[in-house]
Amino acid sequence: MADQYDIIVIGGGPGGYVAAIRAGQLGFKTAVVEREHLGGICLNWGCIPTKALLRSAEIYHYMQHAKDYGLSAQGIGFDAAAIVQRSRGVSGRLNGGVGMLLKKNKVDVIFGEAAITKPGEVVVSAPKKPAMQPQHPAPKGALGPGTYSAKHIIVATGARPRVLPGIEPDGKQIWTYFEAMVPPEMPKSLIVMGSGAIGIEFASFYRTMGVDVNVVELLPQILPVEDAEIAGLARKRFEKQGIKIFSGTKVTKVEKGPNGVSATIDDGKSVQTLQAERLISAVGVVGNIENLGLEKLGVKIDRGTIVTDGLGRTNVPGIYAIGDVAGPPMLAHKAEHEGVICVETIKGMHTHPMDKGMIPGCTYCHPQIASVGLTEAKAKEQGFDVRVGRFPFVGNGKAIALGEPEGLVKTIFDKKTGQLLGAHMIGAEVTELIQGFVIAMNLETTEEDLMHAVFPHPTLSEMMHESVLDAYGRVIHM
Amino acid sequence: MADQYDIIVIGGGPGGYVAAIRAGQLGFKTAVVEREHLGGICLNWGCIPTKALLRSAEIYHYMQHAKDYGLSAQGIGFDAAAIVQRSRGVSGRLNGGVGMLLKKNKVDVIFGEAAITKPGEVVVSAPKKPAMQPQHPAPKGALGPGTYSAKHIIVATGARPRVLPGIEPDGKQIWTYFEAMVPPEMPKSLIVMGSGAIGIEFASFYRTMGVDVNVVELLPQILPVEDAEIAGLARKRFEKQGIKIFSGTKVTKVEKGPNGVSATIDDGKSVQTLQAERLISAVGVVGNIENLGLEKLGVKIDRGTIVTDGLGRTNVPGIYAIGDVAGPPMLAHKAEHEGVICVETIKGMHTHPMDKGMIPGCTYCHPQIASVGLTEAKAKEQGFDVRVGRFPFVGNGKAIALGEPEGLVKTIFDKKTGQLLGAHMIGAEVTELIQGFVIAMNLETTEEDLMHAVFPHPTLSEMMHESVLDAYGRVIHM
Repeated sequence: MADQYDIIVIGGGPGGYVAAIRAGQLGFKTAVVEREHLGGICLNWGCIPTKALLRSAEIYHYMQHAKDYGLSAQGIGFDAAAIVQRSRGVSGRLNGGVGMLLKKNKVDVIFGEAAITKPGEVVVSAPKKPAMQPQHPAPKGALGPGTYSAKHIIVATGARPRVLPGIEPDGKQIWTYFEAMVPPEMPKSLIVMGSGAIGIEFASFYRTMGVDVNVVELLPQILPVEDAEIAGLARKRFEKQGIKIFSGTKVTKVEKGPNGVSATIDDGKSVQTLQAERLISAVGVVGNIENLGLEKLGVKIDRGTIVTDGLGRTNVPGIYAIGDVAGPPMLAHKAEHEGVICVETIKGMHTHPMDKGMIPGCTYCHPQIASVGLTEAKAKEQGFDVRVGRFPFVGNGKAIALGEPEGLVKTIFDKKTGQLLGAHMIGAEVTELIQGFVIAMNLETTEEDLMHAVFPHPTLSEMMHESVLDAYGRVIHM
Repeated sequence: MADQYDIIVIGGGPGGYVAAIRAGQLGFKTAVVEREHLGGICLNWGCIPTKALLRSAEIYHYMQHAKDYGLSAQGIGFDAAAIVQRSRGVSGRLNGGVGMLLKKNKVDVIFGEAAITKPGEVVVSAPKKPAMQPQHPAPKGALGPGTYSAKHIIVATGARPRVLPGIEPDGKQIWTYFEAMVPPEMPKSLIVMGSGAIGIEFASFYRTMGVDVNVVELLPQILPVEDAEIAGLARKRFEKQGIKIFSGTKVTKVEKGPNGVSATIDDGKSVQTLQAERLISAVGVVGNIENLGLEKLGVKIDRGTIVTDGLGRTNVPGIYAIGDVAGPPMLAHKAEHEGVICVETIKGMHTHPMDKGMIPGCTYCHPQIASVGLTEAKAKEQGFDVRVGRFPFVGNGKAIALGEPEGLVKTIFDKKTGQLLGAHMIGAEVTELIQGFVIAMNLETTEEDLMHAVFPHPTLSEMMHESVLDAYGRVIHM
């Protein structure tokens, strides 16, 4: 019997649905299996709805500073339910959009839990109710449980919050990003465990809305993957906003009481107790590798993620993996590109593995943080003799005109070749600026090329130019 | 007698002061002559203070739409004087900054009107009071009138508003950008003549502040230098905001009365009269080539601007010209780069003329507009067989999360080579996005390179990627 599908993608997150769309474009008969909601965590409980919350916070912040801009208003306030509703609406709209895109590209949606029973066969059972969310209805027009066959099976099952023993989320006092995204009301106080992008974005959102926020980070540096100088500037800004930060600090115990949680924290020198109404556990994510039948098939797993050859192929022919479940960096845009590369590889197109050193990372806190490539420390560790350029927002006309004079653009070059090794930014709109450096790195740009590029005036992007000039002792506005 | 200076720069605008700083860096004994204010029109009466006004308007707009974001406030209002004061403060701060930068780079400032009496000699006389502004004081530490000598003289005198006969600005009812920048109070109604960047930015600012705005444009297309499709989208948005637009229309007469101005306009089919409290004349600028002694020296002038060899050299040895006075595009960032190229050429460094096809242009109206390279029409005119990619803001998750679902990213490729010929954008933050395409064009990027670049999610910049994919029939989110 012929296979029902050329390609079945397990998981309808950004990696999975993009892979499925690309597969449809390339003429593959394709299905995507999804157990909760199209768009995955990113679109429904991650990147997108947090950006909506943070947008409300941003505008609330502007309103509170209206006077600085010659404006006025009384009784500035917010409606937590309306902010959450707007955020859910944004996710809902985009979730519907993914359904339409799949349909347009002739991709079937199968609603349920998938397991690979043997190469070429996927058994889909009725979806279980997610642990802490309501049961989701099947997407419109979706197929149901059954046995499906496909030449190629792409595992794109994503990841879920890591749970620490003794600090299990209960959905009431101890939250993960699920509950933190839909607060029934603003808590008075909050402990955020973990200062990666997820933890810091929630810390920033809640602080802007007036909540007392404490961030506890195990490592000495907050935003541990970022350049130390940028992370240090971020910390200063957060602390100025009133966020209390405990780095190099372990949460040794969390106790729940009638009025909230108390967390015992230990920085190696002293032990203290933090009290707050809620605790957000944002200590990373783990790949969803369970109950897929991977072990039985002999699919190679390493440190909780599926091992691939960089083109999506696992050690078992016909089984592929992309996105979070295929290892770090666990970012939607990495998953999407892996999905495209995987499908094009199946098609027999000329593909090559992504250079993971050129994948940007963004944190949408206030101020924003964005980076690509090596940090200064990493570059030195790897033996590069570096030239470092810096340009502060305070020297940029647009930043002053916007009322955003705090921030930094930092660039790192290989002294020997002039190659751009990394770029690190903090400040207004840097998440939209970083792409210029990404393009530059993809084209193996040297400082010479970047110096010749004419950046428009007046823009924040001029600082990218000035930072390069600074690395070569030619900065103008500093 | 030895020359007092290696280089004298006439004009302290963005072209002039950047040239002077670069000259200082390269070890030249340098002076800049300025008759009004360091930073020139751009910093004092152009790019920068308008961005400050537009920032107030942007936040006022958010406040008026607070409910959309789950926020609330009563009695939302503005204080025109405070908005203007903020804008002047931004200019003042940066003006002071330029003074410090010059000092840091050991550049002398000479306050006054310069004339080149012979090659190598500049006579500076006391500055005249500018036509419609208060007399400016000398910058701190500036030298005064006298005869100065220099091996190299760079003319960087910029431009001023073009004046149409019968529509001479009077500073009261008929404004140029000088008066439009510092309204003593918001007029009830306004006629804006000219729909280039300056006219449209003021139209956008005043409309957002609640003013009845009429824009009259001689050409059939508003924003005449922009891609027709983008300009068409802009027009729709402006009209939706309530701006009345009359294109392909000539102002044949302007009469001033006790309550304002009346403008007779003629679109070739019918004649009508517009009434408004104020009229802004924004019909372009003309180079400041007068009273410099250029004619006597035999410096070649063409259509009102100084002719150079692309490296700043005029036909007269020792006399150079950069920026607006050296011809279009009359943009600060073009002037700055010309200044650097000119000084490096004097130094004997290996320089090459700027490729004017890679100079981006930005208009900071709401929605923003940004572009680089050829429009679709121009590309076709030049004989290119083009591939055009489009991606609408409504398909982008960040745009939806921001509440900015209207806009377009359009890319134009040479079908034969895959070379990026132009990029044109309208929508939120596009003035900060365009630099990625500028970098790409400088590196002669093809579609292949751009498709491989990983743009961060969720950002508006992903639309740049999608627009490229669309040009090649591979778009994902549309």
